[in-house]
Amino acid sequence: MNDWNLSVEQAVEFIEWCIERGITTFDHADIYGGDHRNEALFGEALKLEPSLREKIEIVTKCAISVPNARNPHIKTRFFNTDKEYILTQVNDSLDKLQCGYIDILLIHMFDLLIDPRELNETLLQLQSEGKVKYFGLSNHSPLEFDTLQKYSDINFVTHQFMLNPLGIQNYQNGTMTHCLKEGISPMIWSPLAGGRIFKPTSAVEENMHNVLEAIRQEQGLEHLDEVIYKWIFKHSSNPVIVLGTGNKERIERAIKSAEGPELTKEQWYKILVEAGYTLW
Amino acid sequence: MNDWNLSVEQAVEFIEWCIERGITTFDHADIYGGDHRNEALFGEALKLEPSLREKIEIVTKCAISVPNARNPHIKTRFFNTDKEYILTQVNDSLDKLQCGYIDILLIHMFDLLIDPRELNETLLQLQSEGKVKYFGLSNHSPLEFDTLQKYSDINFVTHQFMLNPLGIQNYQNGTMTHCLKEGISPMIWSPLAGGRIFKPTSAVEENMHNVLEAIRQEQGLEHLDEVIYKWIFKHSSNPVIVLGTGNKERIERAIKSAEGPELTKEQWYKILVEAGYTLW
Amino acid sequence: MNDWNLSVEQAVEFIEWCIERGITTFDHADIYGGDHRNEALFGEALKLEPSLREKIEIVTKCAISVPNARNPHIKTRFFNTDKEYILTQVNDSLDKLQCGYIDILLIHMFDLLIDPRELNETLLQLQSEGKVKYFGLSNHSPLEFDTLQKYSDINFVTHQFMLNPLGIQNYQNGTMTHCLKEGISPMIWSPLAGGRIFKPTSAVEENMHNVLEAIRQEQGLEHLDEVIYKWIFKHSSNPVIVLGTGNKERIERAIKSAEGPELTKEQWYKILVEAGYTLW
Repeated sequence: MNDWNLSVEQAVEFIEWCIERGITTFDHADIYGGDHRNEALFGEALKLEPSLREKIEIVTKCAISVPNARNPHIKTRFFNTDKEYILTQVNDSLDKLQCGYIDILLIHMFDLLIDPRELNETLLQLQSEGKVKYFGLSNHSPLEFDTLQKYSDINFVTHQFMLNPLGIQNYQNGTMTHCLKEGISPMIWSPLAGGRIFKPTSAVEENMHNVLEAIRQEQGLEHLDEVIYKWIFKHSSNPVIVLGTGNKERIERAIKSAEGPELTKEQWYKILVEAGYTLW
Repeated sequence: MNDWNLSVEQAVEFIEWCIERGITTFDHADIYGGDHRNEALFGEALKLEPSLREKIEIVTKCAISVPNARNPHIKTRFFNTDKEYILTQVNDSLDKLQCGYIDILLIHMFDLLIDPRELNETLLQLQSEGKVKYFGLSNHSPLEFDTLQKYSDINFVTHQFMLNPLGIQNYQNGTMTHCLKEGISPMIWSPLAGGRIFKPTSAVEENMHNVLEAIRQEQGLEHLDEVIYKWIFKHSSNPVIVLGTGNKERIERAIKSAEGPELTKEQWYKILVEAGYTLW
Repeated sequence: MNDWNLSVEQAVEFIEWCIERGITTFDHADIYGGDHRNEALFGEALKLEPSLREKIEIVTKCAISVPNARNPHIKTRFFNTDKEYILTQVNDSLDKLQCGYIDILLIHMFDLLIDPRELNETLLQLQSEGKVKYFGLSNHSPLEFDTLQKYSDINFVTHQFMLNPLGIQNYQNGTMTHCLKEGISPMIWSPLAGGRIFKPTSAVEENMHNVLEAIRQEQGLEHLDEVIYKWIFKHSSNPVIVLGTGNKERIERAIKSAEGPELTKEQWYKILVEAGYTLW
């Protein structure tokens, strides 16, 4: 939310506006905005209006090491799931968020050096201390997910990864099917491909724009983003969308997209195939 | 069988000819011949000679939506595993086949929008109604197969997919090994690559033709197709072959290929490597 | 060891030298040196100094058929896991090694024609006859490993495959993560990429050389190979390294690398990324 240049008062207003519309989950990460800065603004809002906390769910993430106040000398980004590191990051997140607990903590990336037994201990400790209620993963392959779940006494409740009509690798590599298999509702980030779908700059993007626009007209929808939201929502794993925007009209269209007529199967497959999926 | 321009009487004769030679499984799909047309001819034969039914096993498939009488307006082919749709397709197949039950129903392609719990309900209903005895999948990846099996109370009895010396992707992507793991005998379609092996039109096809021809001579076999059938049969999962031909000589050679001397391991690997498999 | 031109006396001396330094596992294969020749030299050493046998563990492998005394006419290399073949190869290995048992027998490659139930019988027989104590696989994919393990009453104790900073495919294809999942310590062959890292002949190799050299200096290590050994050792699956060298200085550095300061996470990931791994 830092990118949106909100004051603390505006942040409170925005959070309340979301809650009124049924959006109660807010997605953070230690690195968003740089070194807990987004969490800090959100925490200021919670401090100003403490009654908000019990009305919302806070998701945050850690495991990506980038240069920050504690570790200014990092040159290469890497992943870290050591117990000490995760506990430190969660404590910092709780400090910045100015609240006593996180609802869902996600391991932000698969750490190839992870010790799955140590991770299990770390998560159990965070849960028993009341610092984190639920846990999930982000950007893991099916095998990586299964490996960590095998050693974890706690069932992961979600898997957050990228999906949009310009980036369907998580359909192609089986990650979406894996969610279905494990009964997990994925959290989808970058549903609009950073806006590239609306302002195409290549033939591929132009083609997808036209495909979506034709379906928008068929469905009588107001805006292209509704076609995309409906395309994501239609999967049986019940995906939820992570909106990286403060644009209230866009948020309202996302809410609206979860209701009303779904895309037809033919429309849904048309988008998938035009996105490059090989059906045959 | 429509493609072969058989009369109903000729179809009866052909089916009886097959049964006499121990071929008792007949492979159909709702879309073969276009909108149940192949099933309809087969059904006419069963009506003319009802005693055939108990001597054979009928396989049919559904899940691919193409334009047909019920849905003339489809422009993009897509997959559909909704309960209502599958029940309709099976009822139509039973009508056209003019018989009371299907032996094995295959889900023709993996429907990315599938609800595995709904599929389970659908298959249980079809089984309890006596309309279908057994079930299987076709053209699924190992993960897709495992996902549907996990939610299915009924064990799938087969997996039908393509394999031939010009198309070994189901060795490369693990599908053949997955059959071994799950104890499933695959049904192999397109074993002769649509005849391309016999009339090569590229350097790759020419090379495979020569490799197979050399092995045919080493083994003293009559025809190239016997080399291919023996190559497919040699896998420990006990594959069966789906013959898309009414050519009686070819069928007799396929039967003969299941018996007699197998290819040597060296011959078998020679074909695999020349087909592009990376052993090292 | 044949390649190193050792006399039997020198081989005894070398084995004793290794044992004194805590290296007690010796890696063989029926085909190393050609037709059991490496095993034969090792066996001569054991005959000359029988007390060595109980101080060491012998690993050997079979399943790759190449032309040899028994089968001189093989033109195409292939894999063979027939019971009769494995029993013959193990008996030949025991003859050449001049000892009563093998500690760990590895199936050298995945035989696409394998009958997993027959393999299970073969391994049980070898174990009950006292000819082999433990079993493992080499160069299998995760699915291939799981398939054979599913049918095996004996738990495989290791998986041997290639890994080095110029060849990270077993990180990319999930094999390293699979070891973590199954709790297996991998045995890593070709850790130094056949020496190519030390004498780069391409821009890719030159770049990796420079990356490793910079880390060597940061860590104050004596030689590049120590950086590589430490990079391999850092994975949580506790990899062990197969040294294909008689160079005593190199062996001593490998031993030293298992102790002392580890690479930092940042250094470890730097090597992985420069090796071509896509983190994002």
